[in-house]
Amino acid sequence: MTNDLKTYDLVIIGGGPAGITAATTAASFGKSVALVDSHREIGGAGINTGTVPSKTLRETALAFSGLRSRNLYGVDLSLRREVTVADFLGHEEKVKDAFHSTLAQRLGGLKVEIYWGDCTFQDAHTLNVRLSSEGQEGQQIQLRGDKVLISTGSSPVHPELFPFGQGEIYDSDTILKLDRIPKTMAVIGAGVIGAEYGCIFRALGAEVCIIDGRDVLLPFLDKELSQGLVSAFERSGIVFRWKEKVQKCVPQESGGVRLELSSGAVLTVDAVLVAAGRQSNTGNLGLDKAGIKTGERGVLPVNEHFQTNIENVYAAGDVVGFPALASTSMEQGRRVARHAMGLTGSSISPLLPNGIYTIPEASMVGDTEEALQKNNVAYIVGRAKYKDNARGRIIGDQDGFLKLIFRQDDLKLLGVHVMGELATEIVHIGLMAMMCNASANLFVDACLNTPTLSLLYKNATLDALQKIPPSQKNA
Amino acid sequence: MTNDLKTYDLVIIGGGPAGITAATTAASFGKSVALVDSHREIGGAGINTGTVPSKTLRETALAFSGLRSRNLYGVDLSLRREVTVADFLGHEEKVKDAFHSTLAQRLGGLKVEIYWGDCTFQDAHTLNVRLSSEGQEGQQIQLRGDKVLISTGSSPVHPELFPFGQGEIYDSDTILKLDRIPKTMAVIGAGVIGAEYGCIFRALGAEVCIIDGRDVLLPFLDKELSQGLVSAFERSGIVFRWKEKVQKCVPQESGGVRLELSSGAVLTVDAVLVAAGRQSNTGNLGLDKAGIKTGERGVLPVNEHFQTNIENVYAAGDVVGFPALASTSMEQGRRVARHAMGLTGSSISPLLPNGIYTIPEASMVGDTEEALQKNNVAYIVGRAKYKDNARGRIIGDQDGFLKLIFRQDDLKLLGVHVMGELATEIVHIGLMAMMCNASANLFVDACLNTPTLSLLYKNATLDALQKIPPSQKNA
Repeated sequence: MTNDLKTYDLVIIGGGPAGITAATTAASFGKSVALVDSHREIGGAGINTGTVPSKTLRETALAFSGLRSRNLYGVDLSLRREVTVADFLGHEEKVKDAFHSTLAQRLGGLKVEIYWGDCTFQDAHTLNVRLSSEGQEGQQIQLRGDKVLISTGSSPVHPELFPFGQGEIYDSDTILKLDRIPKTMAVIGAGVIGAEYGCIFRALGAEVCIIDGRDVLLPFLDKELSQGLVSAFERSGIVFRWKEKVQKCVPQESGGVRLELSSGAVLTVDAVLVAAGRQSNTGNLGLDKAGIKTGERGVLPVNEHFQTNIENVYAAGDVVGFPALASTSMEQGRRVARHAMGLTGSSISPLLPNGIYTIPEASMVGDTEEALQKNNVAYIVGRAKYKDNARGRIIGDQDGFLKLIFRQDDLKLLGVHVMGELATEIVHIGLMAMMCNASANLFVDACLNTPTLSLLYKNATLDALQKIPPSQKNA
Repeated sequence: MTNDLKTYDLVIIGGGPAGITAATTAASFGKSVALVDSHREIGGAGINTGTVPSKTLRETALAFSGLRSRNLYGVDLSLRREVTVADFLGHEEKVKDAFHSTLAQRLGGLKVEIYWGDCTFQDAHTLNVRLSSEGQEGQQIQLRGDKVLISTGSSPVHPELFPFGQGEIYDSDTILKLDRIPKTMAVIGAGVIGAEYGCIFRALGAEVCIIDGRDVLLPFLDKELSQGLVSAFERSGIVFRWKEKVQKCVPQESGGVRLELSSGAVLTVDAVLVAAGRQSNTGNLGLDKAGIKTGERGVLPVNEHFQTNIENVYAAGDVVGFPALASTSMEQGRRVARHAMGLTGSSISPLLPNGIYTIPEASMVGDTEEALQKNNVAYIVGRAKYKDNARGRIIGDQDGFLKLIFRQDDLKLLGVHVMGELATEIVHIGLMAMMCNASANLFVDACLNTPTLSLLYKNATLDALQKIPPSQKNA
């Protein structure tokens, strides 16, 4: 047993999107960086259990299920055979492997030192690492960081009333291990994870019921977008049970799971996905040794610079809670690296888009109508439908729409809300405009390729311009 | 026979993308507008024979051919039955119909008066229209326009050596009437139309050979993009025969067409698509009565305001030649309306993107490397590959790339060049940045949804930043 002490400018615990981005940012400016990960697989939930696997499954489901071709041509191009989730994920393994090697290469090229193992705080600067990599199992080393970043991610919450491990009861990490597509599925929780997996399994042919104690899907969205998604989900055959709670969950001997709901209703389904939130992975880090405080569900409270209550210890990614997206985690990781390493010269955009990979996709950036009303900002709204757009028609998207919100007095773009195919991509056209403080004229003046979904911006803008008084018209 | 004279602020000949956009722009500012079209179908080549039908066929080909699923999962999801182009275009008819009714509604709402019929100039302000609409066939009326716009589009050139009408010899207007997918096809001309249809028929399973007298595909593109497309086409199985001219074209009695090439090579194919350029539809307009001059292939030369040599007569769209895209035609139509009607208050962007719906798609905006070299502008280039991007991997795009060109001294974005799925959409992210005079920092600072192809911008920018001297680094 050796007991080396190695010192670094930055020690990072957890190699997901936040940790990796912090590592590459700091290292590319010549800082010494160590990265500790307990999984022996780099990438965190972003690559290993969350973002990439679920989006790969989504893409594969859309193709194999024939959903796209049914919408487009009225023809089902599906394979018409019994498929398992593992079938769908064969492609995903390849995608994942490619990521692991790219990431390892990038980190190696920047001389980031990677340690596989578990780690606990000895004090705010010192970490005890118990190595788990081959040939070093059980060895202990110490790492000292001038700054430390906790980016250990989160894990699904397991409410006690669900007997995990018995019968067909899954969380968002284990759902990908299903050995066949269930005929019926109950999803507990109408958050991002519940909504995304609900759509995927519906596309794969399962009868899906989403159960939630509230009565709003993804309440952080603009209300029109949230309601648009509910309608689209319902048209696809998903059933919502709002203001319902599961009171009892009993796996049946004959297979399937029996759910008793607060309304008295009883459901028997082939499988249950519990998507009742996630808790931060902070329980085994010995945070008390460093005096670091946590909140509910283990979340690490941070200030605007992503510092915890201990100045030299930062936290970023899912471990700090909402919005817990790979994109925002990367941005947080970059902010941490810049602040912790005293790097300047680049401004940081406060505009964080939110991308939801449901079917249809949804995405937003900037303000919702509800937020503007609350802040008494006068605005005008412009809308354009996919079905009135050439490419929207060509790809057969019946439900999609783009909604732009402009400040009334100067027509500055304040919010972009999209539902429909490629929503998570085309929202960035609006993001660029907002980052440049652009107003409606930008979209009026732009010449855009035809046919593209991007032209929705032009039509939504022209729609908005019709709603302002003539005296104000300048386009 | 009546002989009314009606007067308008603007009379437009030809209801394609240029004419319609000019009509709606002028009419929405209260100008009186008449639109004359000979086809009894609004929309021009954009909707009826060109953009929308070919892009619909492309989308359908990608789905039905199983090409997408083969790339993605190694599984062919194709229908495995004999299909005709008409099968593929069933969807297209629906798309087209929807356009006709939307356009008619929009034009009607703006009180644009539409006349179906042929028209000839009497003088620079007066047009004789011979009506063809039901119940009015053969009636003559006169329209007088303060300003006149010629937007009559173009038609495929028919070089004499090709015996059109005999055997399986098609142009870009008639190719959609093919009654089955040929096993072998020769495409004459490596321009946009030849390249797009070559890819579509290759996706549908035809052996495709593209023959061109030059040795560059789409020479207006950045060389790297042009070469990337050639490689991608060749990997898909398309064969190029460069620096070859067809010297003889003989339909065979046994079916098929025999082609004798300048090199001495002889080819026998099931079908020939002649895509040897287009000529402007200006021959039957009586232009000499108004003193309007034309150039080669009937093209109408115009100044920066799209005025012909006669001040009150404008021309826009395919009739004025390159680039002859629906998007640029619409932009030209808008410019004409604004200039002709004396409207101000909106600047006009000089940035015209170019979108090519090959398989893979390609798109560009701004400068090519070659243009910058010629103008002695120092620049740096950043590249990002689809296969190193999460969504690129998920959708299985092996060939795609984004290339960004920044001015070296201030890192201003000068050019965007993309090849790969959705190239025509994501190019607009760069277009917005260029319209706002943005530099590299915009993409460094942006938080982008994950996984998206849009993230290619961030990675291409980071790649570029590694190529500048450290003293200049500010990101």
